[in-house]
Amino acid sequence: MVNSRIFTAALIVIGDEILSGRTHDRNISQVAAWLQVQGIRLKEVRVVADNTAAIVEAVNTLRARNDYLFTTGGIGPTHDDITVDAIAEALGVGVIIHPDARAILGRYYETRGGLTEARLRMARVPDGADLIPNRFTGAPGIRVDNIFIMAGVPSITAGMLEALTGTLEGGAPLLSETIGCWVGESDVADLLRATEQAHESCQIGSYPFWREGKTGANFVIRSTDADKLAACTADLVAGLKASGRDAVPGGI
Amino acid sequence: MVNSRIFTAALIVIGDEILSGRTHDRNISQVAAWLQVQGIRLKEVRVVADNTAAIVEAVNTLRARNDYLFTTGGIGPTHDDITVDAIAEALGVGVIIHPDARAILGRYYETRGGLTEARLRMARVPDGADLIPNRFTGAPGIRVDNIFIMAGVPSITAGMLEALTGTLEGGAPLLSETIGCWVGESDVADLLRATEQAHESCQIGSYPFWREGKTGANFVIRSTDADKLAACTADLVAGLKASGRDAVPGGI
Repeated sequence: MVNSRIFTAALIVIGDEILSGRTHDRNISQVAAWLQVQGIRLKEVRVVADNTAAIVEAVNTLRARNDYLFTTGGIGPTHDDITVDAIAEALGVGVIIHPDARAILGRYYETRGGLTEARLRMARVPDGADLIPNRFTGAPGIRVDNIFIMAGVPSITAGMLEALTGTLEGGAPLLSETIGCWVGESDVADLLRATEQAHESCQIGSYPFWREGKTGANFVIRSTDADKLAACTADLVAGLKASGRDAVPGGI
Repeated sequence: MVNSRIFTAALIVIGDEILSGRTHDRNISQVAAWLQVQGIRLKEVRVVADNTAAIVEAVNTLRARNDYLFTTGGIGPTHDDITVDAIAEALGVGVIIHPDARAILGRYYETRGGLTEARLRMARVPDGADLIPNRFTGAPGIRVDNIFIMAGVPSITAGMLEALTGTLEGGAPLLSETIGCWVGESDVADLLRATEQAHESCQIGSYPFWREGKTGANFVIRSTDADKLAACTADLVAGLKASGRDAVPGGI
């Protein structure tokens, strides 16, 4: 049975390289899409600098008001990787070398030049933490309380999310239907508003675009209830039809 | 003369479609890169839902502690476009129809079916606001106090940023040099730390990658002082050379 409570999460993307515009973030969309499948709503994302005070503030605000908090970035071996220390500070705990992480890294680097002091930094965790496996480079992610500390490199984060799949309690997933239409959204604004109002637990989002020299929009209908979602979608399709416009199932 | 004070900005990306993973955000990196050129540091980004309370909280926190606040998303003609109302609420002012915006939209829609009530929504602004031109669709962006309200569609936001280019006071731009090296970052972690410590007003970021079956990293050295930046970069290149590694200018 699907839990009827709504489970929420927040994400903190840590890294000067995102805020400088040098690196285009790819973790927000992958974490967002993964959470949808787990039945967990992503409520807020913050991108913060490699700065202890900024990380501590974001961590303490967001962990308190969400079921889960995810972070990406800042867990490598170099001096600018300060995420573990900042989260330990936010939690008011010390930082320890996790014995399993040390063993994993020791095996990984056995044929790669040995476990140097810099590499051993990647075994440091807030006291009381568990590990999230990383099958790519050995260096694990970290779970402590309701916080999941993941890598900045998107392919490694993908592996960590894969390791977490199905392990977190979620609620009813937010279902969605998308329909597209070659129409300016302002031409159907009244219809969208009226249709949403007539279907209590449904939301309709409107996403305009310009392609092939034409104006169009995709309408995304969302609900946790499959029947209500279908009814709202059918009403919107019928409303568009009544005004002489064909809806494209699945969007344009 | 370049102002020596540091100017900061925050960005709020407004939209359920980003948090659901449906749409991959493209505004963070374009606003970040644009701010760099204006000599303004992007300190924090928040992605929030189409929810008045969430927008109000983020706006009031971030406008108070930055010189500038930018928002993207939620200024279209449909019921889910609530940004203007939320920002007016955050500022404690009313919402009015801006006469110039009404005139611009009237001209734009003269040959496109007329200025309907839904389209007139795009002329609504917080009381006291000025307009930011949008040469693509007519619907303007909005400037009120230190807040710049822009579109969600990235190409339209690009036009609004272009209209703002050179109009905001900035400080000394944060300069950067990038060098790449085919080395695991953990192998040079001590060198990176020591080089940064030896160059007081420089920061070194380390961005590892795996390509062509090999491990490498790009090192980004940042400073507002061109001479200090050059000295720090030269020291890092020399340090890599001393350990038998060639740096690739500009990065890999």
